[in-house]
Amino acid sequence: MSQADSRFMRLALSLAARGLGNVWPNPAVGCVIVNAGRIVGRGWTQPGGRPHAERRALDQTGARAHGATAYVTLEPCAHYGKTPPCAEGLIEAGVTRVVSALEDPDPRVCGKGHAMLRAAGVEVITGVMGAEARALQAGFLSRVEQGRPWLALKLGASFDGRIALSNGESQWITGPQARARVQALRARYDAVLVGGGTARADDPLLTVRAFTPLRAPVRVVASRTLDLPRDRLAGSLDQAPLWLVHGPQAPEEARAFWSGLGAELIEVGESAAGLDPVAVMHALAERGLTRVFCEGGGQLAASLMAAGLVDELIGFTAGVVLGGDARPGIGALGLERLADAPRYRLTEVQPIGPDVLARWHRA
Amino acid sequence: MSQADSRFMRLALSLAARGLGNVWPNPAVGCVIVNAGRIVGRGWTQPGGRPHAERRALDQTGARAHGATAYVTLEPCAHYGKTPPCAEGLIEAGVTRVVSALEDPDPRVCGKGHAMLRAAGVEVITGVMGAEARALQAGFLSRVEQGRPWLALKLGASFDGRIALSNGESQWITGPQARARVQALRARYDAVLVGGGTARADDPLLTVRAFTPLRAPVRVVASRTLDLPRDRLAGSLDQAPLWLVHGPQAPEEARAFWSGLGAELIEVGESAAGLDPVAVMHALAERGLTRVFCEGGGQLAASLMAAGLVDELIGFTAGVVLGGDARPGIGALGLERLADAPRYRLTEVQPIGPDVLARWHRA
Repeated sequence: MSQADSRFMRLALSLAARGLGNVWPNPAVGCVIVNAGRIVGRGWTQPGGRPHAERRALDQTGARAHGATAYVTLEPCAHYGKTPPCAEGLIEAGVTRVVSALEDPDPRVCGKGHAMLRAAGVEVITGVMGAEARALQAGFLSRVEQGRPWLALKLGASFDGRIALSNGESQWITGPQARARVQALRARYDAVLVGGGTARADDPLLTVRAFTPLRAPVRVVASRTLDLPRDRLAGSLDQAPLWLVHGPQAPEEARAFWSGLGAELIEVGESAAGLDPVAVMHALAERGLTRVFCEGGGQLAASLMAAGLVDELIGFTAGVVLGGDARPGIGALGLERLADAPRYRLTEVQPIGPDVLARWHRA
Repeated sequence: MSQADSRFMRLALSLAARGLGNVWPNPAVGCVIVNAGRIVGRGWTQPGGRPHAERRALDQTGARAHGATAYVTLEPCAHYGKTPPCAEGLIEAGVTRVVSALEDPDPRVCGKGHAMLRAAGVEVITGVMGAEARALQAGFLSRVEQGRPWLALKLGASFDGRIALSNGESQWITGPQARARVQALRARYDAVLVGGGTARADDPLLTVRAFTPLRAPVRVVASRTLDLPRDRLAGSLDQAPLWLVHGPQAPEEARAFWSGLGAELIEVGESAAGLDPVAVMHALAERGLTRVFCEGGGQLAASLMAAGLVDELIGFTAGVVLGGDARPGIGALGLERLADAPRYRLTEVQPIGPDVLARWHRA
């Protein structure tokens, strides 16, 4: 690839990132259209998943798309859905070269977009900055390829890894800057997930309040029996969607109460240990979620971890010590060998106010 | 203070830092002698605590000390010990101005050094970069002012704050870079401290092996009953001093075994909960230690933490998850209110190989 190609693709990727958290069930795509070395159009997937990035970019080019190169972070779509396919749009606008980072694994596309372009005489180059594009679009790829969303697990913990005292007191371990950053992070994911224990202990709103997000993340509570507080969660259905994942034994009364308020009820299988974490993740992907931000508690975190479903760890560490009798951020895993422990690689570390933020991706 | 004064004091402080870990029971002092804007002598306390920094700097100046300014990070000594006092040395060399960061709280000095200089007609300016000097010499100040050494507590832990699996397996959680950094840190402290449980579990050498330190840190094991493995610790008395802090009930046989090998035995009081941590720290300060690096285990760490004796936290965090059934880095503290939890402020954070190093000082 040329230097110019990677420069324009890098720009397309940075545009694509604007869609993260806002475009599910669609991928967050970026597009840059360049004619004779000049950028004539820029676009990214819009909140809700459309218009697509290519359409937005073409809206800007007018006739300057004739003979231009389009840089796209994902293969343009080839199927007729609510709008004609983007591959057709690029052809009709007169684009003569398409540089693409990645094939779209969606079976409705999967090579057909590139093929449609080539059939129309457009030069197609693929795989440019493919690794970066895979990382950025990991949520969408995980939904399509693995049938589950990309899952980040957040801990706000003491120096010694505790998220609350043994009596449950947890406000506040980390500082206001870390808590503001958590709200900013929530907005970059499609959904926020907690377990029933956390909902009972904190009755959290799980909304983004520090600013107005382009699209409010779905709030997901995984609770086998729907034994949930009926105060703040119940009173905030107008602020963000609420999905309740429960087991087959959840009482009728609770189901009726929550669905009456407008919450979406999702029944999945369970075992003696609780809800089946694989089934929970499949159910969320089926409904279109690509990026999920789990905020605990310890039992849900352990069950997701044990099932190998956690792609990313996000730790906020405060300079406070709570001791071994305080509550652990991640429950028991029953590991017998260190070699079996899940490993992650560091992707970012920085101070956030008085605390430390470290992010890790699955190794 | 002038810009030049703070510039030369900053240099003196950086020279002083070279002594950390090497000069107990003495303070790690730095000295810069400047004549007509040119540095004519530089010195720092030598391994073992002497010669003092001022003597080393004067060795370099010759006649150029006449009319010069001496920058010292601590008040020059005024008492006749193994050598004549440094204040006298500066006077005899013809230094006419002394810029000092801090009064020496040692009752044998405590203002007398500055007074001796002034009585000889030397201009004395004090308190220049005093806060930085207090921070650098915190170990010596703690020994003299509080009768206990500066205490750092190190944890090498998983993302979720665990230092070993429940079966004790702990090799390795952090990477080789972090382990090398631990050896470098040991060399900057006067002593390395572990509890009996850690000694029994790991039989650690507790020496600096990655390089040859100027002065091997004292190895201190706190073990109520001296029930310790008699393998690696016992076979390494030639490599570094070994001090064993024990309770009144430690059996005669064990005492005789270890003192026969050349270990120093230190008896302190105990309660039902174990050795009295305040008494342990006092005993170490009485024997001259100014900076102690505690490497666990969880029970000793908790007892030092509960007694308010931990000045610094040093955390190495690995990208691995061990779960809530694994061993905590710090034992139970019995806290009932978050407001009572000990708080620390971040002083440093950086990646170390695949791990994260964060250091915190008491808030």
